[in-house]
Amino acid sequence: MQPREFLMIPGPTPVPDAVLEAVSRHPIGHRSADFSKVLRETIDQLKNLGATNNDVLLFTASGTGAMEAAIANTINQGDHVLSLVCGVFSERWARIAEAFGARVERLTAEPGEAIDPAAVKRRLDADSEKSVKVVTITHNETSTGVMNDLSKIAAAVREHGAISIVDAVTSFGAYPVPIDEWGIDVLITGSQKALMLPPGLAFAFVSKNAWAAYDRCRTPRYYFDFKMYRKSLEADTTPFTPNVSFVVGLQTALQMLHDAGRDAVFERHLRLKNMVRGGVKAMGLELFVKDEAASPTITAILPPKDLTVDAIRKRLKERFRIVVADGQDALKGKIFRIGHMGYVFERDILMTLSSLECVLTELGYPCPPGKATSAAVAVLSGAVTAK
Amino acid sequence: MQPREFLMIPGPTPVPDAVLEAVSRHPIGHRSADFSKVLRETIDQLKNLGATNNDVLLFTASGTGAMEAAIANTINQGDHVLSLVCGVFSERWARIAEAFGARVERLTAEPGEAIDPAAVKRRLDADSEKSVKVVTITHNETSTGVMNDLSKIAAAVREHGAISIVDAVTSFGAYPVPIDEWGIDVLITGSQKALMLPPGLAFAFVSKNAWAAYDRCRTPRYYFDFKMYRKSLEADTTPFTPNVSFVVGLQTALQMLHDAGRDAVFERHLRLKNMVRGGVKAMGLELFVKDEAASPTITAILPPKDLTVDAIRKRLKERFRIVVADGQDALKGKIFRIGHMGYVFERDILMTLSSLECVLTELGYPCPPGKATSAAVAVLSGAVTAK
Repeated sequence: MQPREFLMIPGPTPVPDAVLEAVSRHPIGHRSADFSKVLRETIDQLKNLGATNNDVLLFTASGTGAMEAAIANTINQGDHVLSLVCGVFSERWARIAEAFGARVERLTAEPGEAIDPAAVKRRLDADSEKSVKVVTITHNETSTGVMNDLSKIAAAVREHGAISIVDAVTSFGAYPVPIDEWGIDVLITGSQKALMLPPGLAFAFVSKNAWAAYDRCRTPRYYFDFKMYRKSLEADTTPFTPNVSFVVGLQTALQMLHDAGRDAVFERHLRLKNMVRGGVKAMGLELFVKDEAASPTITAILPPKDLTVDAIRKRLKERFRIVVADGQDALKGKIFRIGHMGYVFERDILMTLSSLECVLTELGYPCPPGKATSAAVAVLSGAVTAK
Repeated sequence: MQPREFLMIPGPTPVPDAVLEAVSRHPIGHRSADFSKVLRETIDQLKNLGATNNDVLLFTASGTGAMEAAIANTINQGDHVLSLVCGVFSERWARIAEAFGARVERLTAEPGEAIDPAAVKRRLDADSEKSVKVVTITHNETSTGVMNDLSKIAAAVREHGAISIVDAVTSFGAYPVPIDEWGIDVLITGSQKALMLPPGLAFAFVSKNAWAAYDRCRTPRYYFDFKMYRKSLEADTTPFTPNVSFVVGLQTALQMLHDAGRDAVFERHLRLKNMVRGGVKAMGLELFVKDEAASPTITAILPPKDLTVDAIRKRLKERFRIVVADGQDALKGKIFRIGHMGYVFERDILMTLSSLECVLTELGYPCPPGKATSAAVAVLSGAVTAK
């Protein structure tokens, strides 16, 4: 007998029992009044979470499906797209835009660093001809554990007049993303992160400006066509058979977030981040990202000298059934990543840190028990507020 | 207290408890060895069910997503596509192809009638210049309850040399579709029909000829790009975070189908069809589709004179919590449709027919109790073999 595998990865994330129970109910017909009511409520809750009056479109797809939707509904062949690239997922925006025929310019930051909002502003200020039509932004770069300053970047894009397209897959629901206040044109997210569901649903929040871009857009699309979803939504339904089970589960998850209070949820995530970072520093390990750019939902850590990422991950899983993530692509084997988003709480961080202490010690990197957790507990006694 | 809503619609269909239980397990990481094992097994089972060695690609999407995938990976702007249209879903092929820039020619049959394979052959024989690149076919037209003669149509397409693209959403798993024997190039299906899962996954079976078309295809795509899925599958994984919960559920469902025996499952569906049709005739109601073209999974019925489809559906739901489907688009209010696919058994047909007798009688169309069920039971005592 072993404890259940515990996912401290950046998705799928732990799912509350109540959500699993909702998901396991027998599916209802998607053209029924019952389903329409559930759909309407989830859409309203999503709007509330994103502090927005924009349209919310629900896709049965992975987050990448919603990314494609954002591109295929706004850009035309040959359009100049500025992609802000600081890791695997922000690079994915560029690749999707290229796949759909855009002329992509990358403004990059080194892995582990955030995009410089001032550099974005300078680049856009220099674009006096308004050549740039779309700017793609990754709010929280999952592959490195970096959070970009979306508020400032979106402001620069708004000032310029381009369409802003934002991946908030690993920030939405964990960190404030006031879509209307920040003026984000298309924001996409997925079900399997802070929204506490398994993977399978994705969402796009679409602004008036984005709808204007839609009207000019001639890129071929069907399954992800924004307007079909908006038209169906006016009748509280979806154009194609949706994952009804997950929409029902989502209703439960969003109600839980609502009951907990949006701000309290955001504050918890900041606390978890500070606990992880405090604990990791106390163990003498090196954090991959400096404090100012640190993600509230994913922390990337360098292994101690002489220990491999593989060994640490393997032992953590075998010994305690806790799963943490490797780096991706060029960072594979260079960092390991602890996800702390969604249905994750203070006690889970204490568990993960103390398990990590134990594992590192066993592997030959001495970590006196209690050092990391003391640092984490210290965070709990301090006051941390959402910023 | 009321009995659970019972779905006698053409999807979502009833889901076995064991599958709901599997779906409700906590998601596992999609980059884990455990998940790879599940994925490999489900792919192998799907190949077995389709009697094929073609590649099987798994998408987190509705069936329409897989339809788009089939088009976006095989056609080029301006390609001549022959769409065999006999209802809403076969028309959807034409619309998707048009959305992706194809020049679509429709070969149509009246609603309620099947496509004439001889007409397809004549049309393709006349195409001596091989202008037609792709033929889209809907095996089982869900909107009318018609099954097309896929074997003959696919043979005509193969003889011509065009790529055949087949929607088998409401036939795969309920009726024999020997993909290799029939030479089908791209066959797509979804999770929420005969595969006994809720909606949320879709599949494409891709032949060598289809891969050759892929290599010539320049249509923009990303999320549904066939090659990304094939490449990932070689490592027993998926390119994007899949709906891990449903893949786990699918493993259970496919194992149940395997244990029941493919042929026995197909025979059961033919029995259910014959029971429904026998019962409906015994009630003196008119079937929308004649026997030769009748679907094994969906039966469309005209309401008795002076009764509306709405009234029948409403009363059946209120009185017995049994849900049957309305017609779609032009057939809305003209027919009602009973779905009998997936986790549906003989007793469910008896229940539905006797409930329908009761409801029709109450609404003023006299249906002596037992007439329909007698006819259905007579089917049970006869020998029905899969054809």
